[in-house]
Amino acid sequence: MAITRFGVSIDQALVKEFDRLIDQKGYANRSEAVRDLMRDSLVDEQWQDSESEVVGVVTVVYDHEQRELSHKLTHIQHHFSQAMVSTLHVHLDEHNCLETVVLKGRSGEIKRVAEQLISAKGVKHGKLVATTTGGSLA
Amino acid sequence: MAITRFGVSIDQALVKEFDRLIDQKGYANRSEAVRDLMRDSLVDEQWQDSESEVVGVVTVVYDHEQRELSHKLTHIQHHFSQAMVSTLHVHLDEHNCLETVVLKGRSGEIKRVAEQLISAKGVKHGKLVATTTGGSLA
Amino acid sequence: MAITRFGVSIDQALVKEFDRLIDQKGYANRSEAVRDLMRDSLVDEQWQDSESEVVGVVTVVYDHEQRELSHKLTHIQHHFSQAMVSTLHVHLDEHNCLETVVLKGRSGEIKRVAEQLISAKGVKHGKLVATTTGGSLA
Amino acid sequence: MAITRFGVSIDQALVKEFDRLIDQKGYANRSEAVRDLMRDSLVDEQWQDSESEVVGVVTVVYDHEQRELSHKLTHIQHHFSQAMVSTLHVHLDEHNCLETVVLKGRSGEIKRVAEQLISAKGVKHGKLVATTTGGSLA
Repeated sequence: MAITRFGVSIDQALVKEFDRLIDQKGYANRSEAVRDLMRDSLVDEQWQDSESEVVGVVTVVYDHEQRELSHKLTHIQHHFSQAMVSTLHVHLDEHNCLETVVLKGRSGEIKRVAEQLISAKGVKHGKLVATTTGGSLA
Repeated sequence: MAITRFGVSIDQALVKEFDRLIDQKGYANRSEAVRDLMRDSLVDEQWQDSESEVVGVVTVVYDHEQRELSHKLTHIQHHFSQAMVSTLHVHLDEHNCLETVVLKGRSGEIKRVAEQLISAKGVKHGKLVATTTGGSLA
Repeated sequence: MAITRFGVSIDQALVKEFDRLIDQKGYANRSEAVRDLMRDSLVDEQWQDSESEVVGVVTVVYDHEQRELSHKLTHIQHHFSQAMVSTLHVHLDEHNCLETVVLKGRSGEIKRVAEQLISAKGVKHGKLVATTTGGSLA
Repeated sequence: MAITRFGVSIDQALVKEFDRLIDQKGYANRSEAVRDLMRDSLVDEQWQDSESEVVGVVTVVYDHEQRELSHKLTHIQHHFSQAMVSTLHVHLDEHNCLETVVLKGRSGEIKRVAEQLISAKGVKHGKLVATTTGGSLA
């Protein structure tokens, strides 16, 4: 990894406000916070192109007493097994489970898998997080 | 406006990717793009605090033949007249109108006005844009 | 417009929570709130397809003393004049202006125009609202 | 769970468009799709109130060779151990790891934990998913 350095010219009042914000969020320094904003905009762009290789994390919350649903979720995961990386299953209370599924592949396909999981009958809430393989974001 | 300058240390591959992205978006240089990301995160934060002085733009699309709706939208705008700055009315086709309402005030109140406008019976689609008075974003 | 009716079977506790939420947002009734959610998901989908005919509203906040910026914003608007519908210009304070530009066209092109406007040097904050011509959202 | 039923009056063209969309997303029927939209708007509202009991899932991607970072992420998770439910660690490639952390607690606190994890030096990309304990979303 070759590190370089570039300068940002900026109004003093703006940089002061930004320093207050990132301190509150826990950033160690301004470079780290700016790099995070830059990487975030690159990840957004990757997900706009349905052919990009990306990582997605699908979270679903559901009632585990719905036996057919567990079968359906497992079935979908096996059907798209090439994209499946790993799954975390959490018992939230006596009724509710949360399942977090990590997927890797083309963004178009991962969106489709996410739609299948989230739309399954009995899923109370589902969301897809669009993230990255990390490869191009040194 | 006092201009200062700070440095960002960064991996060369990341900055190359970022340069490609911002060139495509039309940015003249990296400083301008980074400042935009910084200001965007500050505007997000302002809107998290319901007491912050902000600017909001509400857009609603509706069928102008619904006479009661026009009255209702006008009524809401007069009721919150202190926050109202200006309104643009556009005829999209023979049936559909678009109205864009610029509001200035505390973010909590502007969210409430936006909810009233967007929920009015007959509004087909409505959205609130969270922006800024510009004052603290030199 | 031919009106039809469909039934939603739902848990009582969920519908009670939903009624509380939409009352707070100002909806007259549950049908109106559900239709808004349905239309919102359709508008989201339209914007995923870069060829869909849509309406976008771009809001930019900037310092009007930056003369070159005014020229540039006007230049961009004329360059994409086929997509331009109307513009509202608001004086927020002695320094800051807000411009809201209504655009109609294919979503891919409108995103590009929005990027040009938002990335122009001197624009403090910019956002694109993705909305609809209203045509298919009776 | 007591099931009830309510009717939605709606334009035929709109319901036809909606049916096309939800079929494509994999929904078994319209009721399920409408309930998902209703629950989604309730989860959004829960997260606006910093005192609501919610579930959050934080995903971070980072380079595992950064030893200090692993320590820091572990340290943060132990510091907020009351909110921690479970963690999934995935090896994306020889350099990159993904960690998905499930948290349960008041939304205000979970946002703070997420900010700490995402801002840690060396995290390439991080996102918080706002979901629910499922409790109030029968």
